[in-house]
Amino acid sequence: MLLCDIGNTSYHFLQEGRDYKEDVSAFDPASIKQKVYYICVNAAINKVLTTLDNWIDLKDKVNMDDYYETMGVDRIFACEAVSNGVIIDAGSAITVDVVKDGKFQGGFIYPGVNAMAKTYENISPALSYPFNFDIDLNKLPKNSVDAISYGYLKMLYMEVMSHDMEIYLTGGDAKKISHIFKDAKIDETLIFNGMKKIISKG
Amino acid sequence: MLLCDIGNTSYHFLQEGRDYKEDVSAFDPASIKQKVYYICVNAAINKVLTTLDNWIDLKDKVNMDDYYETMGVDRIFACEAVSNGVIIDAGSAITVDVVKDGKFQGGFIYPGVNAMAKTYENISPALSYPFNFDIDLNKLPKNSVDAISYGYLKMLYMEVMSHDMEIYLTGGDAKKISHIFKDAKIDETLIFNGMKKIISKG
Repeated sequence: MLLCDIGNTSYHFLQEGRDYKEDVSAFDPASIKQKVYYICVNAAINKVLTTLDNWIDLKDKVNMDDYYETMGVDRIFACEAVSNGVIIDAGSAITVDVVKDGKFQGGFIYPGVNAMAKTYENISPALSYPFNFDIDLNKLPKNSVDAISYGYLKMLYMEVMSHDMEIYLTGGDAKKISHIFKDAKIDETLIFNGMKKIISKG
Repeated sequence: MLLCDIGNTSYHFLQEGRDYKEDVSAFDPASIKQKVYYICVNAAINKVLTTLDNWIDLKDKVNMDDYYETMGVDRIFACEAVSNGVIIDAGSAITVDVVKDGKFQGGFIYPGVNAMAKTYENISPALSYPFNFDIDLNKLPKNSVDAISYGYLKMLYMEVMSHDMEIYLTGGDAKKISHIFKDAKIDETLIFNGMKKIISKG
């Protein structure tokens, strides 16, 4: 079975436990002839895929009652993979969603690592530093690197910890973010697990 | 007495209780002949001002022991104005500083309202909304506008409230931010108060 999670920058495939990525600008989806179960947040690509019979959009198979209309389909499928927990998907945006007893409780969107670094840099060249992910979040900073790192990370940390639930980390920056969530489970294939669940439900 | 707080975009003057602003790109500081006590975060303008005898840089008069080398001088003077409290200066960046018994405890830097709105917009056109400052921060969002508003504001709210101190709000976006800090004291002239204190100390 071939699964594909399509974001703004890449096609993320999973087949027989092996995952790999293809660049959105270079890859031609018509080059695949076998059946592909997919989800897609990229509107332009989605338009193309609806013309290809072997690409099957899993979005249509989800019961949307618990979710909201404009919620990203990647967030929805990550939620489907988890029964109880806080899900952090750290990509170009960081989405944080809470699931309790298999039901979506709500969630929010925070800028991704690169986006936020660029934000500080654009405000002032004096704020152009890479974040310190090993910062001590229990102490108010007294230097510039930690002042922006704390501004970015402490906020996210406090809100996520306030839910007092298991934390699931996924997405391209999961490893970076795991520095502040030491007990989080890192699972790069979380969204695929949600897709498999939906397929097996029929 | 004429005071001036110079930022990245404007000269902010105070004279006899009346404050007004001049645009950085249009205003010529040599046009003022009287004595001006100033602070300046704008390196290019600071260079010009050191050549003008009537412009007196107050930065040199502060005891820097409690602060750190690269800390913005506007933050330092806001701290000088307060004995106990959390100071939020909401401009192009939002700086948050804690002062206890007249001593700076540390602080951090968060993106300003416009900078953060642009960040979300740049991540995806699907996240291009104005923030909802009247959001209920006690409830996880189930719509897009609140998902980004919560992502921006809840974080700031939790961290600031965790200090359990009086909150002082200043800067161009103080009124917007005051929607989430209902008991905060808004004081547009906080930095000027710090400047006056330093002048009176001699």
